[in-house]
Amino acid sequence: MASSISTFTTRLSEAARIVEAGLQALLSDKAAPGELARPSRLMDAMRYAVLGGGKRLRPFLTIEAARLMGVEGEGPLRAGCAVELLHCYSLVHDDLPSMDDDDLRRGRPTVHRAYDEATAILVGDALQTLAFEVLADPATSSDPAVRSGLVLGLARASGLGGMVGGQLLDLSAEGRYGPAELGEAEVRLLQMMKTGAILSFSVEAGAILGQADAAARRSLVEYGRALGAAFQVADDILDREATPEALGKRTGKDREKGKATLVDLLGLDGAKRECRQLVEKADAALAGFGDKAQILREAVRFVVEREV
Amino acid sequence: MASSISTFTTRLSEAARIVEAGLQALLSDKAAPGELARPSRLMDAMRYAVLGGGKRLRPFLTIEAARLMGVEGEGPLRAGCAVELLHCYSLVHDDLPSMDDDDLRRGRPTVHRAYDEATAILVGDALQTLAFEVLADPATSSDPAVRSGLVLGLARASGLGGMVGGQLLDLSAEGRYGPAELGEAEVRLLQMMKTGAILSFSVEAGAILGQADAAARRSLVEYGRALGAAFQVADDILDREATPEALGKRTGKDREKGKATLVDLLGLDGAKRECRQLVEKADAALAGFGDKAQILREAVRFVVEREV
Repeated sequence: MASSISTFTTRLSEAARIVEAGLQALLSDKAAPGELARPSRLMDAMRYAVLGGGKRLRPFLTIEAARLMGVEGEGPLRAGCAVELLHCYSLVHDDLPSMDDDDLRRGRPTVHRAYDEATAILVGDALQTLAFEVLADPATSSDPAVRSGLVLGLARASGLGGMVGGQLLDLSAEGRYGPAELGEAEVRLLQMMKTGAILSFSVEAGAILGQADAAARRSLVEYGRALGAAFQVADDILDREATPEALGKRTGKDREKGKATLVDLLGLDGAKRECRQLVEKADAALAGFGDKAQILREAVRFVVEREV
Repeated sequence: MASSISTFTTRLSEAARIVEAGLQALLSDKAAPGELARPSRLMDAMRYAVLGGGKRLRPFLTIEAARLMGVEGEGPLRAGCAVELLHCYSLVHDDLPSMDDDDLRRGRPTVHRAYDEATAILVGDALQTLAFEVLADPATSSDPAVRSGLVLGLARASGLGGMVGGQLLDLSAEGRYGPAELGEAEVRLLQMMKTGAILSFSVEAGAILGQADAAARRSLVEYGRALGAAFQVADDILDREATPEALGKRTGKDREKGKATLVDLLGLDGAKRECRQLVEKADAALAGFGDKAQILREAVRFVVEREV
């Protein structure tokens, strides 16, 4: 095998570094072409929501999947930043009092706590818009078919049939819209929509940027789906086993709210076994790429073994 | 002149009819390709937010501007629906308790009143996403440069440097983030961002769909800006003169909150004079198009003379 764990962690932190710089540039106070002004309170709060935290796993996946397809540089970086902006918008809105009502995120006050609720809603709205703006900008790709393909993919993964729909199902699972006792199939659908779709798109974006053929694209989508599912099972395990101090946010929330997780449905051992199976599935999807895909193989292991 | 007021109202109501049908189709319960499921509570609330109301002025402008550029049918209809979805998202979020705290919209309970706050936030989020998805879909144009141009234009008009930025300035103008006494230039900037940018883009979208040359596009953008400004002055006049019953929402809100409007700054007569000047400016921008642009000339008159 061409790679090693230390190569992996170097690449992950290198990606986090350039993504941080890319996000900083996108969120500067200077108005971009076609913009009338950038209100300073909004920009402050957007930077607060986005900068200085997170593993930047999603952009890392986009950058590495694009590299596997032979594309490096500005395009994958910008597409990765767009996925991260979209992810950050979802965190800001999910934390709101009427949603999950969280006070802490990454160990700091959530946006509506640090600013106010109206600002947090607008921050989320503007981050979503900016994600699509970044993808549609010619700086992301000189090929407009690539740009509109990226927009379409992110929209499908994040909208009513993806992430936002999953969040609605998640709120329903608390029983707030009538009795809700979720079975295994429903928990899996909810998780696939709420977190899996965007993780899977993070990988697929690399295939779009690389104008991969249908077979390569299908393989990357399969890999992305396995990784997304593994991420969520690992998340359920962490929520059961980790301390709030280690995670920088509350744990055991799902149990408090009576929401079934895969740990409830499969048991802790069953959930860990499923994680291992998903790693194998991800490996199988990458089989055709050989050694070049070693970083992505390590990424799925990182996802299931992470401690935060 | 080739057209008449009765032609105008016929075209406006015909556009409203096909837009309503288009929006209905986009908001059906049936999952689209790439979507995992469409949660029924979310779809119900999205339809509640979007269907059965409004003059559909923005899609009308897109359809008529595209027709002027020689493009008719599915493309302009879909682009118009996208702008309307974006507009509806902004209404749902602006009405939220932490924002303008409105109970009524078009004479009916607002979305967070009819459903709940979490659902209203998600409805707005998903409507924004759907707007970009519709534009990026090949059904809107077979030319990917047109699709990504539409996405980029809508994003710039609606994001942090456009509509969302304008809403943040509007909240600031209430004095909630420190003392705020807005002068004329600031009120104009706020209005241009909050409502002008999207109205102007509604027209520009027609130029993008028609792949207009630079001069024609510039003329349509100028027309759209004048129309957007006229819309807002007329809105300020209506807010001062109309009854809540006629408007289907509260009036005099800006004064209650101590926000300066153009009527405060220019006086009622001054505001009405400005409306007339903006109509002339819009006419001047359309001069090069001759009789074919008659519907757009009537549109700006409709905007300043409307009663709701």
